[in-house]
Amino acid sequence: MKKRKIYLDNLPLIEAEKIWVGILDDLEMLEPEIIDTTKALNRITAKPVFAKISSPHYHGAAMDGIAVAASKTFSANEKNPVRLKLNIDFKYVNTGDPLPPECDTVIMIEEVHPISDDKVEIISPHSPWEHVRGIGEDIVATELIVPENHRLRPQDLGAILAGGHAEISVRKRPEITILPTGTELVSSSVNLKPGDIIEYNSAMLAAYVEEWGGKARITRPAIDDYELIKSKLQEALETADAVIINAGSSAGTKDYTASVVKELGKLFVHGVAIRPGKPVVLGIVKGKPVIGIPGYPVSAALTMNLFIKPMLYKLQGIPKPSKPIINATISRQVVSTIGVEEFLRVKLGRVKGKMVASPLTRGAGIIMSLVRADGVVKIPALREGLKSGEKIEVELLRNEEDIENTVVVIGSHDVIIDILANELKKTHSGLNLSSAHVGSMGGIMALKRKEAHIAGVHLLDPDTGNYNISYIKRYLPGESIVLVNLVYREQGLIVPRGNPKEITGIGDLTRDDILFINRQKGAGTRLLLDLKLKELGINHEKVRGYNREEYTHMAIAATVAGGGADVGMGILAAANSLDLDFVPISSERYDLAIPEEYFKLDLVQKLLKVINKPEFQQKVVALGGYDISHTGETIFVK
Amino acid sequence: MKKRKIYLDNLPLIEAEKIWVGILDDLEMLEPEIIDTTKALNRITAKPVFAKISSPHYHGAAMDGIAVAASKTFSANEKNPVRLKLNIDFKYVNTGDPLPPECDTVIMIEEVHPISDDKVEIISPHSPWEHVRGIGEDIVATELIVPENHRLRPQDLGAILAGGHAEISVRKRPEITILPTGTELVSSSVNLKPGDIIEYNSAMLAAYVEEWGGKARITRPAIDDYELIKSKLQEALETADAVIINAGSSAGTKDYTASVVKELGKLFVHGVAIRPGKPVVLGIVKGKPVIGIPGYPVSAALTMNLFIKPMLYKLQGIPKPSKPIINATISRQVVSTIGVEEFLRVKLGRVKGKMVASPLTRGAGIIMSLVRADGVVKIPALREGLKSGEKIEVELLRNEEDIENTVVVIGSHDVIIDILANELKKTHSGLNLSSAHVGSMGGIMALKRKEAHIAGVHLLDPDTGNYNISYIKRYLPGESIVLVNLVYREQGLIVPRGNPKEITGIGDLTRDDILFINRQKGAGTRLLLDLKLKELGINHEKVRGYNREEYTHMAIAATVAGGGADVGMGILAAANSLDLDFVPISSERYDLAIPEEYFKLDLVQKLLKVINKPEFQQKVVALGGYDISHTGETIFVK
Repeated sequence: MKKRKIYLDNLPLIEAEKIWVGILDDLEMLEPEIIDTTKALNRITAKPVFAKISSPHYHGAAMDGIAVAASKTFSANEKNPVRLKLNIDFKYVNTGDPLPPECDTVIMIEEVHPISDDKVEIISPHSPWEHVRGIGEDIVATELIVPENHRLRPQDLGAILAGGHAEISVRKRPEITILPTGTELVSSSVNLKPGDIIEYNSAMLAAYVEEWGGKARITRPAIDDYELIKSKLQEALETADAVIINAGSSAGTKDYTASVVKELGKLFVHGVAIRPGKPVVLGIVKGKPVIGIPGYPVSAALTMNLFIKPMLYKLQGIPKPSKPIINATISRQVVSTIGVEEFLRVKLGRVKGKMVASPLTRGAGIIMSLVRADGVVKIPALREGLKSGEKIEVELLRNEEDIENTVVVIGSHDVIIDILANELKKTHSGLNLSSAHVGSMGGIMALKRKEAHIAGVHLLDPDTGNYNISYIKRYLPGESIVLVNLVYREQGLIVPRGNPKEITGIGDLTRDDILFINRQKGAGTRLLLDLKLKELGINHEKVRGYNREEYTHMAIAATVAGGGADVGMGILAAANSLDLDFVPISSERYDLAIPEEYFKLDLVQKLLKVINKPEFQQKVVALGGYDISHTGETIFVK
Repeated sequence: MKKRKIYLDNLPLIEAEKIWVGILDDLEMLEPEIIDTTKALNRITAKPVFAKISSPHYHGAAMDGIAVAASKTFSANEKNPVRLKLNIDFKYVNTGDPLPPECDTVIMIEEVHPISDDKVEIISPHSPWEHVRGIGEDIVATELIVPENHRLRPQDLGAILAGGHAEISVRKRPEITILPTGTELVSSSVNLKPGDIIEYNSAMLAAYVEEWGGKARITRPAIDDYELIKSKLQEALETADAVIINAGSSAGTKDYTASVVKELGKLFVHGVAIRPGKPVVLGIVKGKPVIGIPGYPVSAALTMNLFIKPMLYKLQGIPKPSKPIINATISRQVVSTIGVEEFLRVKLGRVKGKMVASPLTRGAGIIMSLVRADGVVKIPALREGLKSGEKIEVELLRNEEDIENTVVVIGSHDVIIDILANELKKTHSGLNLSSAHVGSMGGIMALKRKEAHIAGVHLLDPDTGNYNISYIKRYLPGESIVLVNLVYREQGLIVPRGNPKEITGIGDLTRDDILFINRQKGAGTRLLLDLKLKELGINHEKVRGYNREEYTHMAIAATVAGGGADVGMGILAAANSLDLDFVPISSERYDLAIPEEYFKLDLVQKLLKVINKPEFQQKVVALGGYDISHTGETIFVK
C-alpha cells in the first residue's frame, strides 16, 4: 500500500500554533506518581505539601551548655554567684538535645563556670526560653511547605523530609517514543556506503525531550514501508504519552507519516509556512499526540522547539519557561520570502559595546549551523527580510555570559583557527573563540563594520610582495591595527590521491580535461591564484570551473575528494585531512589583524598568550605545511 | 578517645576562600571517562571532538526529483523540450539518495513532466550541482565540532554522531560521599522521640551535589563516636573524590570532624567568620578534600555554596557559573556584627516598579527561610548592617520571572493565606503568592512603605465595632484602598487537649496557675485581646505571660502544645491543626486591603478570581472556624 500526496499545506505558523494549543488544551494532564522525596530534585509537585509534623517536634537546646529552670538563676550576679548541682539543678546539653523536664532555659557553656565535677557557678540571671528551639520554630505541622506546581530545589527536599514526608506526589515525566524512519538510516558510522545516513537525529530529539522534562525512548529505525510504520506507531502508542515520527513528514513518494496519522486518527496539520521545517505533521491518534518531524536536522530541531516543547510543558502542567532574548544589530542584509516565518541562526559578539548578530548558513541540512549558532532570529512572515544594521531580537542558544566572553575572529579560513579555539577553551574554560569564514577581504570589512575583534588575513600585495599592510592602510584608513603573525603556510593545488591527471602547476589549469573549483571573491587564496595566473599571462576565462566557488579550504578539498573537481587551490593541511595529494605553489603569511582598542582587551591578550604556548605550536607543526618561526611577531600599522 | 577543643577560629571569609582556592588549585583534575554520545547531554567534553567522517559522506540529492547529467538539459526550453529516458538519461531520486554515476544535478519533481512510465520531459536548462548536497556540506572530516570544556547540548550530540563518534570522552562527574553523623539522627519520621532529629540534611546536600554536576552517595548515619567516624571517613575516601561530613564541625563535646581530619590528614580551616555557617572544617586527607559542614540546615546550605560548589566545578575543570544578581532596596534596617560576613535571606517583590527585599528570619535552623527566600544578600564583614531603603544586590534563588509574577501579601497570619497561595499556583502555574506574617498593623505599614501589594488585616475599631476602615483612613490617608473580605473567622483561647485547667473565658487569664502566651504588638489578635480585657476591666499586667510574644497563630498553638504556655489566643484552625482544644471568644472580619493601583493589576485580579472559586472556599470551610458568607465582598475606602 503506497499513498501519495504531492502537495503540503502552507499554513501560517500562527494558525498552526492555534490549532496545536487547542489540541493540547484538550489533553488530560498525566496522572501524578509517588516517589521518594530524596529523588525528587527538579521534579514538579503534583499536590501541595503540608507539614505532617512540626520541626523541631520538641523543645530543644539551641546551644551547647546547661539546661536549668530560669527561676533558679534570678538572684545570680558577680558578687553572689549561684551554685547549681548536676542532675539536681541542671543537666549538660548539646545543641539539639531535648530540654529536660522542669528546665525552661539553656545557658551557653561559655557562661558556665565549673567548680567541681558535679557543680557549676552562674554569675548572671537568665530568662526563660533563652537558647531554646521551641516546637515548630522551623516548621509547624499543617503549614504549607511547597505548593502544587512547584519545581523542587535542594532546600525544598530538606524541608519536605523535615515535615515528615518520605515520599511525595510529583508530575509524571511524559514518556515520548521517537520512531526513526528511513530505509537509508544506519546506526553506526562503520563501513558507510553512499546513500547511508547515520541516524543521529533521534539522539538530538531525545536530548531535547529530556531537557524539557520528558523521558525519551528511541525505537530501531523502520524502513520506508507504510504498513511497518503504521504498526510501529500503534505499538508505540500502547505505552507512550506521545509519539514523534522522524522523517517521512513531507510529501514525497516515501513520506508516509501524514497518511498513517490520517488512517489511524485525525490529521490536523500537514505543512506549516516556516523555514526551515515546513513539512511538519500534527495529529492525534488514540487520544495521544503524534508529531511528524522533518528529516533535516535543523528543521527537526526547530519543529521540536515550536511544537514538542509546549506539548511537554503542557503534559507536566507547568508553564513553558520564557526564552532568553537579547537585543542585537544584524550585520548584513538578509532577504527572506514573504508569507514564510523564517528562523535564522546567527553568531553573536560584542564588538565596541555593540552586540552584533551575523547570519549563519540557512540550509536546513547543516546541523553545524545549530552547533555554531549563538541564537535564532525570527523573520516575520510579512517581512521581505532584514536590513543591514537593523535592530533585532535574538533568542539565545548559549548563555549571555559565554557570548560576552567570546572573541570574534572573522576572515580567511584556516584549520589553525579551530586548533586555536580549542586551546583557548582548554586553557581558559570560560573563554570562547567564534569564527566565521568569509575570506581575507571579508575579514577586513568585518573590522570596518565593527563586527569582529580580529580578522584572519593573508592578502598579498602584488606590487610590493608584502602581505596585508597595504590592504589595511587602504581599507581601514586612520585606524591603528596590530598585525600578529599566526603562521606561514604552504598554499598549493589540491588533487586526488595519486594525482591521476598529473597536475604539476598553475599552467595545467587551462587543460581541457581539467575541472577547477575556486574560492569565493575576496579570499586571499583566490587573490594568490589570480596573481599566479597573471604572472604566467593566463586569462582566467581559460580555467574551466573558475567561477564555481567554495568558502573554505576544507570545502575545496571535499569537492576534490568527492570527484566534483579535478583540482582546487588550498593549504596542505586541508589536503592531508582528506588524504589527498598536494602540489606546492607558494608559502604565504597568515596574520591576525587586530584593531588597537581590541588588542588591549584582556580576552584578546589571553588569546595571544595561547598562540605563544608550545602546546599550541606543536599541534600546528604536526599538521604539516606550517612554519611557526615568525608566530607571535607583531607589526603596528597606522 | 574523646577530643575536646572549645574554641573555633574566626577566619575572615576572604582568607578562608583564598586557602581553599589554593588547595583546589593543587588538586589534579579527575580522569575523563568514555561514554555513549547518546547519553552525553549536559556532560562536559574532556577532549576536542574533530569529525572523523564528513557529512554528507557522498554527493546526494537535496530534493525529490530526477538525477541527470546537467549537459543533457542545456538545450531545453518551452518550445523545444528535452526528453529523457529512465535509467539511460535519468534516475528518480528522493532527498538523501546518492547521486548516480554520470549525474551531476538534480531536477525537482515539480519541474519534471512525465510522458510515459519511463520517459519525462524537461522545459528548461539546468546547471551542474543544482539541488545536490556535496560531500562535507555540513561537516568536513577533521573539522572541529566542539572544543574541550564544552557543555553538550542536544544539537551537539547530533553533530558529534554525524561526525562519526559513537562514543566520546567527557569529564567524570565527581563522586562525593556524604557522611551524616549524630547519635540523635533518625531516618524516618515514624515514632519520633524527643531528641530525635530526622536526617534530612543529607538529601539536601546530595541534591546540591547533583545540581553542580557531581554524584552523591549518602552513608548510613554514624553515631557520635570518634573512632567510628574516623573509620567511616577512611572507608569513604577509598572510592570518593571528596567527602562531606555533616554536623560535628563545631567545637562541642561531640564535634569530632576537625580532630579526625587533623589526625588523618591536614586541617586547613576550622571556623570562618560567616553567619550562618561559622563552624566549617576544610581539610585534605589522602590527597582528597574533606569538608565538615555544620548541622543547622541553613548553615549547611550556605557552606555548601561557598566551598563545595567551587570544588565541584574545579574537579570538572569548568568555570563556576556566575550567580544571577538583581538590584533591590532593603525594606527595613538590618543590624549585623562587624567582622562577620552575613548572608541574609530575603523575599523579593516588585511593588510600584521598585524591587523590594524584605529580610526573613536569620536563624540558622530555619530551613523554611531557604524555602521561602527569593534571594540572599551579603552583608560585608566591615559593615554594621544595612540601612532601611539602602540599595543592595541580591543573589537570586528563584528565577526573576517567577519573582515578577509574585503577588506580595504582608500582614496578619492565617492558614487560609497558605491555601490561597496553593490554589493560585495550581490555577495559574506561572503565578506565585508570597506572604510574610507581621500582624495586621505590620501589613498596613508595609502598604505605606510600598513593600506589599496586599495587606491581610483584621483590625477592630473599639469605638465603632467596625473592622479595618478607620485604621486605613488613619494610617494611609489620601490613598484609595479596596477592602476585599476573605473570611469571617472564629477567634478564641487555644488550650491543651481536654482543657486541663478548665479555662472558660478571658477572665481566667488572671488566674495564678495560668501562663499565657501573647501575640506581638500590632497583631489584630492582640488588639482583640486588649479590647476584651478592657471590656472586662482587667489590667493586662495581671495576665502572667502577657509580654511573651509569638508571631503567628501556629506558633501560639505550638507553644501551648509543647507545654510552654497554658493558653494563648488564636484561630480555631490553628488549634485544630495541632489537635488542641478551643474556647470561642469572638467572630472577626479578615480582609485583604489592596491599594487601588494594585487592585487593577492582572496578577491581583487573578488572585481575586481564585478567592471566589468554589474549590478554594470548600477547602476553607473544611478547616472549621471560618464563615465564607461574605467572602469576596468589596468596600472602597478613600
